[in-house]
Formats: sequence, structure tokens, C-alpha cells
Amino acid sequence: MLEEWRINEGNYVLLVHKNKSWLLKVKKDQKFQTHVSTINLSDLIGKEYGQRTQDGLYYVFKPTLIDHVMKFERGTQIVYPKDAAYTILRMNIGPGSRVLELGTGSGAMTAFIANFVRPEGVVQTFDVNEEYIEIAKKNIEKAGLSKYVKFGLFTEKLEENYYDAAFVDVGDPWKLVDLVWKSIKPGSIAAFLLPTYNQLEKLYNSFEKKFYPEETVEIMIRRLQVAENRTRPQNFIAGHTAFLTYCRKII
Amino acid sequence: MLEEWRINEGNYVLLVHKNKSWLLKVKKDQKFQTHVSTINLSDLIGKEYGQRTQDGLYYVFKPTLIDHVMKFERGTQIVYPKDAAYTILRMNIGPGSRVLELGTGSGAMTAFIANFVRPEGVVQTFDVNEEYIEIAKKNIEKAGLSKYVKFGLFTEKLEENYYDAAFVDVGDPWKLVDLVWKSIKPGSIAAFLLPTYNQLEKLYNSFEKKFYPEETVEIMIRRLQVAENRTRPQNFIAGHTAFLTYCRKII
Amino acid sequence: MLEEWRINEGNYVLLVHKNKSWLLKVKKDQKFQTHVSTINLSDLIGKEYGQRTQDGLYYVFKPTLIDHVMKFERGTQIVYPKDAAYTILRMNIGPGSRVLELGTGSGAMTAFIANFVRPEGVVQTFDVNEEYIEIAKKNIEKAGLSKYVKFGLFTEKLEENYYDAAFVDVGDPWKLVDLVWKSIKPGSIAAFLLPTYNQLEKLYNSFEKKFYPEETVEIMIRRLQVAENRTRPQNFIAGHTAFLTYCRKII
Amino acid sequence: MLEEWRINEGNYVLLVHKNKSWLLKVKKDQKFQTHVSTINLSDLIGKEYGQRTQDGLYYVFKPTLIDHVMKFERGTQIVYPKDAAYTILRMNIGPGSRVLELGTGSGAMTAFIANFVRPEGVVQTFDVNEEYIEIAKKNIEKAGLSKYVKFGLFTEKLEENYYDAAFVDVGDPWKLVDLVWKSIKPGSIAAFLLPTYNQLEKLYNSFEKKFYPEETVEIMIRRLQVAENRTRPQNFIAGHTAFLTYCRKII
Repeated sequence: MLEEWRINEGNYVLLVHKNKSWLLKVKKDQKFQTHVSTINLSDLIGKEYGQRTQDGLYYVFKPTLIDHVMKFERGTQIVYPKDAAYTILRMNIGPGSRVLELGTGSGAMTAFIANFVRPEGVVQTFDVNEEYIEIAKKNIEKAGLSKYVKFGLFTEKLEENYYDAAFVDVGDPWKLVDLVWKSIKPGSIAAFLLPTYNQLEKLYNSFEKKFYPEETVEIMIRRLQVAENRTRPQNFIAGHTAFLTYCRKII
Repeated sequence: MLEEWRINEGNYVLLVHKNKSWLLKVKKDQKFQTHVSTINLSDLIGKEYGQRTQDGLYYVFKPTLIDHVMKFERGTQIVYPKDAAYTILRMNIGPGSRVLELGTGSGAMTAFIANFVRPEGVVQTFDVNEEYIEIAKKNIEKAGLSKYVKFGLFTEKLEENYYDAAFVDVGDPWKLVDLVWKSIKPGSIAAFLLPTYNQLEKLYNSFEKKFYPEETVEIMIRRLQVAENRTRPQNFIAGHTAFLTYCRKII
Repeated sequence: MLEEWRINEGNYVLLVHKNKSWLLKVKKDQKFQTHVSTINLSDLIGKEYGQRTQDGLYYVFKPTLIDHVMKFERGTQIVYPKDAAYTILRMNIGPGSRVLELGTGSGAMTAFIANFVRPEGVVQTFDVNEEYIEIAKKNIEKAGLSKYVKFGLFTEKLEENYYDAAFVDVGDPWKLVDLVWKSIKPGSIAAFLLPTYNQLEKLYNSFEKKFYPEETVEIMIRRLQVAENRTRPQNFIAGHTAFLTYCRKII
Repeated sequence: MLEEWRINEGNYVLLVHKNKSWLLKVKKDQKFQTHVSTINLSDLIGKEYGQRTQDGLYYVFKPTLIDHVMKFERGTQIVYPKDAAYTILRMNIGPGSRVLELGTGSGAMTAFIANFVRPEGVVQTFDVNEEYIEIAKKNIEKAGLSKYVKFGLFTEKLEENYYDAAFVDVGDPWKLVDLVWKSIKPGSIAAFLLPTYNQLEKLYNSFEKKFYPEETVEIMIRRLQVAENRTRPQNFIAGHTAFLTYCRKII
């Protein structure tokens, strides 16, 4: 069954030309125009992923989850793959996990988590901003992960000792420490994303007797340029996205 | 059903005292001794994770996958969580994926991948060193992930266009580029882990018309000490583990 | 004698407004216009450095050497302060030292070295590109350091066992290793700046029995944003400028 | 005049064997023993720096200032070369400068500054701890820089508008901001070394209308292992020494 690596109408594809890429849905009798060239989307149907377009100017790939998320409509700053990936491993979740997310934002982290808890697990995500929730819903829908996500406003009551892990990305997470503590299972992990060191101290002060802090880290990623006799780190890198704190519920 | 957060006989637990931790299996009528104190393992049975031991000196946690892997018996250098996590997200795998691993080593990456492809997916992992395979098998068994891993020596023939992604961690990966190319699906991702600059160039030279290199990165993680009025990055960090190259199969 | 901290006609000043700065020479009856406002340079004469302009919009500072160098006309990539500073300390030079520089470029490193070897020392700097030398001469002149620099084209014969240290910033430094070895004093230090790892290997291969390599480093600098309750590393940093190799002449 | 690169009795030498080094004073009829071998110091007299010892096991180098400082007796944490070098360039000092140092500590930074302000300049350094001052005096004496340093306890009155720059390395630098402001020349630079984020905020809060903060940075240095086909960053690096704040006196 090779269906999954052939392009059908309605599939998303990623067109790649040099360092630029475009994410689009394949529709019959439609054209797509970039600064490079114009292509007929009909021509893509039935092709295998990994091929070039007929004009030879683009590679056509099946978009990865990262491709989808990086093209998400943004209501807020998104959680970057480097931070999301480590956090998912660090929260000790996987297929079947029930994960609580406080601070849906644009739904980037929601999508990353949803991908790894499917098909039996679920992400229950909350935000106080309805507009963000609407943006996130659309984003998650496009990424094909809606079945694994439940959205909510912060007014809902949470079940106790219920979630396998929690991810918190709000401006004042110390106010939610009690709530998080109650809702996750004993010994399980809560992850907090915070951009400033001041928030770290306030967060730690709020842990007393509820959470055992395991580590706070920042993750840096540096791209390299690899080319014969010219291999070197790239000139620019992101200097800082956020600090990440991981702690375990104690009782 | 709270069973999963109560300790039963036969469960693994992580004892944590300050910055030290011990991973052990709970057995009746047995004692466990550290430089801190001696505890009766029987006393742990029926307790909830997240509690302290009776002498108040340790927290008792359910070991995470990272806890298991960091205590793996090591035949080789292991793949670290920072590198494993980003790679798993970057390979675009998830529950149900079939993943090829070349270079089993101690089984650290094998375990990380297995966790995220279960229950329907599988890691097919190969090594040329039978001793490593034996070590990895034991490690994976302890981590409870054997059902999702198939081990093999490098003599086996691989199915073509079959795997959703490949992870390669061997000394001379350029020799395996053809094999990897054949065995993964069109457009899917191969990830290569390499410690030196030289290997990067040789690898890229072997890609021609087979793989589209997306990025080579190194990931650095820095722990912070958080304490009121004394918050700062920690004094020491790992300077380098490996470079990671991600590329897509083109046809 | 407070002359040195009062502004005279003919002095350079640095105007600073928020994150922007302008380096200019104070001339009577002249105006200077930025996107912020227009100021009469005559008004600055007699003022102390560290004051604001009359319209309150700029601070007026005495330009530092770094200020001068960062505003140098650039024929080539300049050596950045982070790299220059460590190299000067590492070369073990100081007032009175005679320093050889191969690869004048825009004269940035020339200026930094000149500042620290004055008044008795000298930088003898060479480049194969006459255009660069002209640019560098003008830059060094503006920085007020011409007395301590001798310029030359690469055709000159060098004195042997004569220099206290050498700094080499050219594309193929391994071709100059013999020359450098002869010209510096026994046991003294040669510093090499190279952007790619490939150059490092070629350089090390050329050292045999001439130089004892002490270390190769890269220096990263990260700025922080400090503000009450919002202190954090800045979002962007330079990812890579160059590798720096320090070695000692052996005999 | 080749005297300076021949070893005389009474000179310091640095013996280097692989990654180990020893700093010692050459005395007649004395032996020096390491885990590698025993050498007669008399044999070194008259030799050139850069040669090997008679047994071929060590290189004999003239110690650099960094060599001296790294072997200083330590009463406190020292200022590391990476931080010292950038700070000296950033303070805009050089031969002839008068520099104020608050917090002598072990005298590492004192020595680095002294080297670059000689022969006409001076470092006036203060500490509240007499024991540290004694240690620093001995260290500076060994490094041959005593002529350029004046030591003092914190009780002395300072001249106003007198110093070309100030370096402050104490636990509560905000208490000294007024003092520093008065003692340095208008527009000149004060540098502060602080290990924690918290100190940064307190410091910045104390600047109001006295100092214009230019930047706060942290400097990271990473060593590379260079070897044919095995070139890579080294496994371990210092994760953090201190933050450095540079600001200018405003009036």
C-alpha cells in the first residue's frame, strides 16, 4: 500500500526551492505562483513525494508536523521545535497519555503533544483568550490533529489526579501551580515555559511542598553550513526563546 | 483507577535524595542501602509515587523513560535526551511509525523511538556488534519496550520503500546512504548523528541525487540554578555531544 | 587638567540616542542631522563628555576604540571585539611589543593591537591587496593610531626572531607558517583566525616541529536585556565569526 | 639583543607535557620532579625558550601573563581571561590609563589591567579583606607587575573625576555606584562583574541619572579538538562564569 507516499487531491504538499518553502493544498485545475515560477497543481496528483515539479524548480515533500506548525497562523509567539521536543520527552508522555495544557496560544505545542499521544490519548488545552483558541483550532485542524485535542476556556473545573503531565505557558504560572498540582497524577511531571529569569524565581517560590523541581534549562540550537572546504557554524542563531522548568508532583 | 500511581511489587522506582538518584525494582523483604540511609523496600509497596520514604530522606518517583535510559548499561556512548528528542520530532514519526535504526549501540535512541511509535509501530534496529545488541536488548527489556523493537545484525536484507524514517548512528554513515535511501519511503526523513566536522562533509558528499539535506544542527542545553537572589546559569555544561543532519529522500 | 574630558573643536564625539549612535567630528558652525533631530555642533564645544545635547535627545560621549572600529569603512569582514580582545591577551603582548600582522584587511585588528602596544611598540601589518591597505590607513588615521602602525605589501623581507607575537588572518594561513615561524621570537605566540573547520586541519598539519598548538577556541558573546521583571537573554546573537588558534614557536 | 628569549637564573619558565603544565623559577643546582620525570634546572640556563628539556619530555616556554594568573594562589574565584580581555577592551583603557578596581580578590583582573596600562598608568585596587590583599600582592609580585598597582583598604577617600575607567567585582556593587560615579571622568566607562541575574537588576536600578548602560553580556568560550578527520568541539565547556555590565558616566 503505497498510497501514503503518492499525492492525492486534497493533500497538503511542501514545495521547496533553495531555502524557501511553501505549504499548500493540492486542488485540481488550480495554479500556484511564487517568485520562482507558476505551477499547475493538477500536475502533482499521482506523483510520489520526493520528486521535483515538472519545471524542475521545486522539490515536492509531504509536510512534516514541524512544517505545518512553522506555517501556523500566529496569535502569539509559538513554542519552537527545539523546546517542544525536549519538553515532550521530559514530560514522559507518549501514545495514550492525557496531557493538560494551560495557555493554548497559537496551538503549536498543542499540535506537537497531540501528535505523540494519539490515537488513544488527548490534550486538554485551555486559554483565557477566545481569539487565540479560534486560531489554534484552525491550526490544529489543518495539521489533521483535531481528534486528539479538547479546547476550553479557563472557567472549567478540572478533574483531580487525572492527567499524566501538564504543560504551562502563561505569563503568571505561579497562580496556576495549585490547579496543576491537583489535576495531575502523583509523581507526574509539570513543565513550565517562561521567558524571563524573574518568572523562574516566582515559580520556584510557589512550589513549596507541591512540586519537586528537577531542572530548569534553556536549549540552544545552532545550524551549520556544510560544504566542501567551507564547513562552519552559521552566522546567526536564535539567542533565546525561553527557559523550561520541569518538576514532579509530590504529596 | 489509581493503580498506575501506586507502587506494586515488581515496579521500578526512582529514589531521589538531593542531586542523587537511584533506580531500583521493588521487592518484598529486601533492603536498599545508599550512602544516605538504608530502607526497607517492603515499606514502599502500596504507597503513591511522589511521596517520601518513611525516613523522610528520599522522594519516591515513578521512573521516566529518561531515568531508565540514563541508567542504561553502556556498551557505547548513548544518544542524549536533548539530541534524541529533537530528532524524533524532526523525523516526523509518531504512534504507528515504522522506524529503521542503523547503529543500535546501547539502545538509548532505540528506547526513545520505541516509546513514541508504540503500540502499533516498530523500531527495526541493527548493529554489527552482537555484544552491543545483547546489552541493548537487556536495556530495552528493563524499560518495558521490547514489544516495539526488532533487533538484527547487519546481514539482513531490508524491505524497500518501507520505513517512515531512519536514524543512523555509525562511524561511517556514508557507506549506508544507499541502503537507507532504498529502505525508506519517498520524501521521508533520514537523520544522521555524527560527532565530527569531517564526517559531515563526507556524508553530504554521498547525498547526491538521493537526499535533500534540510539542516545540520547542534543542540546545546544549559541548566540554570534557580534560587532566590542567586539565579544563574550553572557552572558546567556539556560542550558537545554530536552534530545532527536531517535530510529527505528524493527521487 | 580636565581638558581630556571637555569637547574641543576637531574632537570626535559619539552621539547616542536609544540604540543608535553616530560618530562625528566636531566642527564650528556646522549642523548634524539624524532622523531624530538636527543639532548645532558649535553647541558641543566646551561641554563635558557624558552630557546630553541641548535638545536633550542624545548623550555625547568620547568615542572608545571599539566605537571607532565598529564605524570603520570596511573593505573586508572585520575582526570583532570579542575575538580581538581575547587574542590580544592570549598573544601575551602589551606596551612596547612588536607585533606582526599578516592580513591587514580593514585594519580593525591592527587598531586594537596598536592601542595596546603604544607608545613604544609597533604593529607591522601586511596585506596583498593595496586597496585594503588604503582603507585601513584611513581607518587607523581616524582612530589616532597611525604612529604605531607600519603598513606593507607582502613582498617585503621580514627580520628574523624579531616579533613578540604574530596575528594571521588570511585565507590560506598554512602557506605563511614558515614565514611566521622565522619572524617571531622563540617560544612566542602566533594567533590564527579562520572561519572554517577545514582551514583548522590544514593549519595544524602545517605546524609540525614549528609550532606547539595550545588551543583552538571559538568565542560567543550573548547580550542580555536587563529590565525590572523582564530580564532575559536577547533574542538574537551572532552564531559564529571565526575560530581562533594559538600556538607557540618551538625550536 | 636576544637576552629576552634565553633562560637566565631567576626566570620563570613554563614546562609543558601534553595537557599538563608547571610554572617554576629556575634555580641553579635544583631539581624539579613531576609524575613524568625529574629534571635539573641548571640544564635550562642559557637555553632558548621554545626548546625541549634534555630528556625530550617537556617544552620550556616563557610564561605568559595568562600562565601566571591561572597559577595564582586563589583567595577567591578569579576573573577568567575571556572575561578580563573583553572588559579591558570595553573599558577603553591602554598604556597610561589610571584604572580603579573595587574588589581586588586574588588579583587576577588587577594583573591583567596592570599589564596593559604600564608603564605610565596605574591600577588602584581596593578590597575590604586584608587577607585577599596579601594574597593578591604576592601574586602580582610574581607576575612582575607590582610597580603598576596600588593596593588599598576600602576606607580611603578617592579623588574625583580622576580615573579613566573602573572595574567593580564585589557582591553588592549597587552600594558603590555613587563612589564609582564620582571617581571616574565624565563619559568614561565602569565595568561590573556579577554572577547572578538578580544582581543585574539591582545594579541597573541604581544607575538612574548616573550611568548610561551600554550592554550586559556573557562571554562563552568553547575549545575545539583539531585532529585530522576527528575535528570537533570539545566535550566540556565552562557554562557560566559571570555577567558583565558596561556603562558610561553621565552628568
